[in-house]
Amino acid sequence: MPRPFGFIKTRTLTFLELLVLAIGLLAMIVMTMPGLAESLRLAAFVMLGCCLAIYTCELLVKIRQATGSEKKYLLSATGLIDLMAVLPIPIALLFGVPANVAWLLASLWILKLATLAPGLAMLGRVIALEARALGSVIVIFLTILVLSSVALHSLEGPAQPQQFGSLPLSLWWAVTTLSSTGYGDAVPATFLGRLIAGFVMISGLGVFGLWTGILATGFAAEHRRRDFIRNWDLVTQVPFLKNLDPPTVIELTRLLRRLDLAEKTIVVRRGRPGDCMYFIASGEVEVKVEPHPVRLAAGTFFGEMALLTGAARSANVVTTQPTTLLVLEVGDFHTLTAHHPELAQAVAAEAARRSKPTESKPHMAHATGEKRDRTLR
Amino acid sequence: MPRPFGFIKTRTLTFLELLVLAIGLLAMIVMTMPGLAESLRLAAFVMLGCCLAIYTCELLVKIRQATGSEKKYLLSATGLIDLMAVLPIPIALLFGVPANVAWLLASLWILKLATLAPGLAMLGRVIALEARALGSVIVIFLTILVLSSVALHSLEGPAQPQQFGSLPLSLWWAVTTLSSTGYGDAVPATFLGRLIAGFVMISGLGVFGLWTGILATGFAAEHRRRDFIRNWDLVTQVPFLKNLDPPTVIELTRLLRRLDLAEKTIVVRRGRPGDCMYFIASGEVEVKVEPHPVRLAAGTFFGEMALLTGAARSANVVTTQPTTLLVLEVGDFHTLTAHHPELAQAVAAEAARRSKPTESKPHMAHATGEKRDRTLR
Amino acid sequence: MPRPFGFIKTRTLTFLELLVLAIGLLAMIVMTMPGLAESLRLAAFVMLGCCLAIYTCELLVKIRQATGSEKKYLLSATGLIDLMAVLPIPIALLFGVPANVAWLLASLWILKLATLAPGLAMLGRVIALEARALGSVIVIFLTILVLSSVALHSLEGPAQPQQFGSLPLSLWWAVTTLSSTGYGDAVPATFLGRLIAGFVMISGLGVFGLWTGILATGFAAEHRRRDFIRNWDLVTQVPFLKNLDPPTVIELTRLLRRLDLAEKTIVVRRGRPGDCMYFIASGEVEVKVEPHPVRLAAGTFFGEMALLTGAARSANVVTTQPTTLLVLEVGDFHTLTAHHPELAQAVAAEAARRSKPTESKPHMAHATGEKRDRTLR
Amino acid sequence: MPRPFGFIKTRTLTFLELLVLAIGLLAMIVMTMPGLAESLRLAAFVMLGCCLAIYTCELLVKIRQATGSEKKYLLSATGLIDLMAVLPIPIALLFGVPANVAWLLASLWILKLATLAPGLAMLGRVIALEARALGSVIVIFLTILVLSSVALHSLEGPAQPQQFGSLPLSLWWAVTTLSSTGYGDAVPATFLGRLIAGFVMISGLGVFGLWTGILATGFAAEHRRRDFIRNWDLVTQVPFLKNLDPPTVIELTRLLRRLDLAEKTIVVRRGRPGDCMYFIASGEVEVKVEPHPVRLAAGTFFGEMALLTGAARSANVVTTQPTTLLVLEVGDFHTLTAHHPELAQAVAAEAARRSKPTESKPHMAHATGEKRDRTLR
Repeated sequence: MPRPFGFIKTRTLTFLELLVLAIGLLAMIVMTMPGLAESLRLAAFVMLGCCLAIYTCELLVKIRQATGSEKKYLLSATGLIDLMAVLPIPIALLFGVPANVAWLLASLWILKLATLAPGLAMLGRVIALEARALGSVIVIFLTILVLSSVALHSLEGPAQPQQFGSLPLSLWWAVTTLSSTGYGDAVPATFLGRLIAGFVMISGLGVFGLWTGILATGFAAEHRRRDFIRNWDLVTQVPFLKNLDPPTVIELTRLLRRLDLAEKTIVVRRGRPGDCMYFIASGEVEVKVEPHPVRLAAGTFFGEMALLTGAARSANVVTTQPTTLLVLEVGDFHTLTAHHPELAQAVAAEAARRSKPTESKPHMAHATGEKRDRTLR
Repeated sequence: MPRPFGFIKTRTLTFLELLVLAIGLLAMIVMTMPGLAESLRLAAFVMLGCCLAIYTCELLVKIRQATGSEKKYLLSATGLIDLMAVLPIPIALLFGVPANVAWLLASLWILKLATLAPGLAMLGRVIALEARALGSVIVIFLTILVLSSVALHSLEGPAQPQQFGSLPLSLWWAVTTLSSTGYGDAVPATFLGRLIAGFVMISGLGVFGLWTGILATGFAAEHRRRDFIRNWDLVTQVPFLKNLDPPTVIELTRLLRRLDLAEKTIVVRRGRPGDCMYFIASGEVEVKVEPHPVRLAAGTFFGEMALLTGAARSANVVTTQPTTLLVLEVGDFHTLTAHHPELAQAVAAEAARRSKPTESKPHMAHATGEKRDRTLR
Repeated sequence: MPRPFGFIKTRTLTFLELLVLAIGLLAMIVMTMPGLAESLRLAAFVMLGCCLAIYTCELLVKIRQATGSEKKYLLSATGLIDLMAVLPIPIALLFGVPANVAWLLASLWILKLATLAPGLAMLGRVIALEARALGSVIVIFLTILVLSSVALHSLEGPAQPQQFGSLPLSLWWAVTTLSSTGYGDAVPATFLGRLIAGFVMISGLGVFGLWTGILATGFAAEHRRRDFIRNWDLVTQVPFLKNLDPPTVIELTRLLRRLDLAEKTIVVRRGRPGDCMYFIASGEVEVKVEPHPVRLAAGTFFGEMALLTGAARSANVVTTQPTTLLVLEVGDFHTLTAHHPELAQAVAAEAARRSKPTESKPHMAHATGEKRDRTLR
Repeated sequence: MPRPFGFIKTRTLTFLELLVLAIGLLAMIVMTMPGLAESLRLAAFVMLGCCLAIYTCELLVKIRQATGSEKKYLLSATGLIDLMAVLPIPIALLFGVPANVAWLLASLWILKLATLAPGLAMLGRVIALEARALGSVIVIFLTILVLSSVALHSLEGPAQPQQFGSLPLSLWWAVTTLSSTGYGDAVPATFLGRLIAGFVMISGLGVFGLWTGILATGFAAEHRRRDFIRNWDLVTQVPFLKNLDPPTVIELTRLLRRLDLAEKTIVVRRGRPGDCMYFIASGEVEVKVEPHPVRLAAGTFFGEMALLTGAARSANVVTTQPTTLLVLEVGDFHTLTAHHPELAQAVAAEAARRSKPTESKPHMAHATGEKRDRTLR
């Protein structure tokens, strides 16, 4: 399915986006520094203006590109963030807000980071799934907060009216203490007050531990599900894997690890002990054998000799374009083949079949198992 | 089994309860603020009075409704909390406690939150189950606390009598430090004192880490058990699921996710890629197909085409009443069908059987698998 | 195998030990308070003396009881702790240490808590097993500590010699910051110093997160192993469980939960929905049926009707002595019987067989499945 | 495969390395202390010089040893760390940096710890694998940081220009608060400022919880994989294990625990209850039976009687050289034999076969199962 703004996700554009964002935020920070040379302040404003212009252009381009579904784009989370990056500052300036204050709205640009962070959606899902349990923790948190601040208001209020004289002041102390921040601007002085404060601190640890435990649990479950789905999509792109019998495919999908590599990355180094084999889900790698390097396309695999014979790697393998690999580690391979011996046979048969036409380089075939015949076809 | 106060749990009442609670606590907080206009203070007292009246009425209604088992209600946790919300304030006023102080007892109202938080019981169970391990952590905590405070009392006491001159003062420093709160009101100054303090801080991290680790472990186990039991009850309400062979049902129960939706929530959006199918445990949804939307009752399923063919969703699906769905994700579906191929066949057969009478709209039947025949029956 | 001091572990003695410990420590704390009435101070000293006398007697009794293996007892961890509770104070007094200081050694009594905490050994094992990973975290911790304190000594030293003028001072700041305690007695003032401090704080979170993550992982694994071994010992005491076929026993052992109950505890309440069944590993329970309560001895089970028919509990069940139960929850029961249908049949058969001779009370037999015939034998 | 610097990893050398490092860092710390006797300062400088000389020698030896692959060593992480330990100080002194400052570069020596910590690579891998999720947490962290510091700059700036007068100052407050360090040097005073600060503190807990949860999850997965691979290598060195049927080997590999012991360590104590058996992967142990102690070489096992009969250990077992054992616990043994009964038979048969020639000491054969015949061969 075509993604209209998919090109924004490419590596170079992401880097440019981050650069513009960093410059913009830096300019905003510089702008607020008091004893600044006027020229520097001017430069900061120019920078801020440039960034705003860039974001405005980006917004306009996106809106134009989204003809037919304009409305949808502006109503999407990304659209709203893009809009919030552009509109508030001119509006504030129009309404007569001083420039110094208006440009602080550039801090909203940081929200653009959210559109660049791929894992944020998962975090959101974990929090949504664990909402009940997290809600209970918040209830505990609030209960301790209110009860302890009332107690300390009663106990410490008369002696320290500046620190505990009203409930808002007491609540400020309680939240500072319960979150273990501990500014030290309000410290109980009475014996009973300190006893309660001690319980609040220890409760803070407990509440925090519960919170962390819940998130860790939820995150682990979500992670497992997501990895499976992502791997599943990739496995279907490797004919060899897809054609195994279903239970083996499922188990394999669980065990594979996705590896996204940039162009010209060394995957395997000659002479290193091999502890995994690789399936190419997309992209291409080059096996650096003398005299003719061999290219392996998507759908093939390499490095299986490390698992079958335990031999060291016999050649460097380098990506020639952005490549996605699926990694099967030696431990997982043994686990799988113990229950599904046909897998080891299939890998060995495939490796043997392929190595035949290249008998002139047997050492290579045995050690890295290049798939020359397949890739040259 | 009928629950006499089950109606209290409904959505609207919960919202009202929270509103009353928020107003009451806010009024209590406002009441304590020193430089307050007399009119505002009066308003706060009126609010507090109203809340107390509401809680008193609630208590009386509940007691009257519980005829026959009155005693039980007042002895239950909920009953005690309701009682503690009503009685202490008038009693305090009767005994001549000044209004300012007596109304601080309104902070007990926060305990009502506990009756609204469904996950609290589970947290309690986790803590009970892990009591031994958590007890060990508390022993470590107390040991470090006592030994370090005695050490710092000896080392720093002579130089800083205000901070470390007695063991209670030293203990206050130790609990502040061990919980990593660090007010800074007592700071060791000698070399040895600081060395010990450093160990206390690092121990604090260790103790906290143990605590969190134990809770995380216990929570994960409890979570898994509870989800299974909750799902099991729902699975028995979907005839299709219930009639699968037992091991498949068990595995399915583990993998399903419960989804509680309010009325008029969009479950599935047209054109989106489908990554799960839905079983309706209770409630009803409407498939928005032209020209005649189709209603699906509890016990049916929809969205299975996304799993069988990978096609995008072909229609919006919206709930018509509060609905509980069981979600089966594509990854879990593949895992299940690999080991239990009969499940995929059953789903496909059911889908095919149902789509026959509606051959006039084949695109719909193939893409969202509406169950018109079943729902119209 | 007979434990010579096993009786010390009994409930009453544990409580007495805790009481003596609490009084001793409290007396020590009171002793150090500056503006104390002379009579109170005297009372504290008397208390301290009594506790010391009690601990001395305990030590002597234990040594006498351990004839033949005396040396072993004194060399064991418990023996050393007992020795450290008794010897240091008189020795200090003999060497002329002032009483005020010498009695601070009573803080060593807190170590006795360690002998009362059953989970401490497990925590020690987790730490030992994860020693490598935890060691790595400590290496990271030390590296950040040293590098950041050198950096801040260089940057802040000239301006704040009292806070950062030497490396020990800088290290004090670093450990305070890295552990997120943050006393605020030393705060960097330069831009670069604050930038580095920011990194130190964030690293602190990271280090702490790693530490917690490692402990959580190790604890989960250890917990699973330990529970299995403990349950295994108990399962062998229930003939019904022991005679199931081996894979079922193993799975069952994993799923059971141990429940240690005091005398006269209510296990099951009449009218409550039943969500588990109970096997009696040791002890005895009484089923409160009219007119003749029934006693169930170790090796029997009860509450299985809740799992077989889903009916509510039909009678209270109370322990008559300290009892250890093994709990099988409804969800786990369904999981097990799906894969091992013979278990459900065995439970049902056993329940039916037993209920026959007591047909005069069929409502009881059907709802709580008492094992009258077996227990009366 | 031969490791050229493998000898560096041996126990004695590691201890020496740590000693030199500790002395060097201590000397550096002492050097910076202000009121120091001139003689002590001189001693510190001498120590620092010695350490530098040692590290220089080490570097030269390593470079000489690495002839042929010199370049590789210097480009490896270890090589770079060794280089950074030696070069910067003389260079700084050459460029006229005062000795006091130049010698602070000795803090780089702490990086040598990284080469001694074996678990560091795993931590790095976990962080790399969870990079996406951790990146999302950092995005959340930065977003809260920027937005809250802009808000507090606006709210508190006018009243507290020294604390919130510019964005860098505000950011300093935000990072201090969000990491729950809480120095207390900047504390919001307005109501709204404190409200936002409260949210920042609670968010700090949430962010930290997410971070910890992600690391815990990733660490658990990595740990499991790594243990399997390490155990797998060891299992292949024990013929008895290697010859079991593949699924049993795989399950066994998962359950075994590696135990690295120094020379003369007591593995098993006479009279203790046995809860595990041991396979010797490398090294040698001596069974202390009278009159002739028996030595067991790598590839044999001992202690199996504890698992087969539940008897107590009948003799001490001590290592005679650095030894690696694989431990199988009683719970895991039962689990395994339930599904793979041939394992128990194989262990019992092997034990019986071996004990025959030593029928003169049957008590020994029955209780610790020494492998005299095998080891004497």
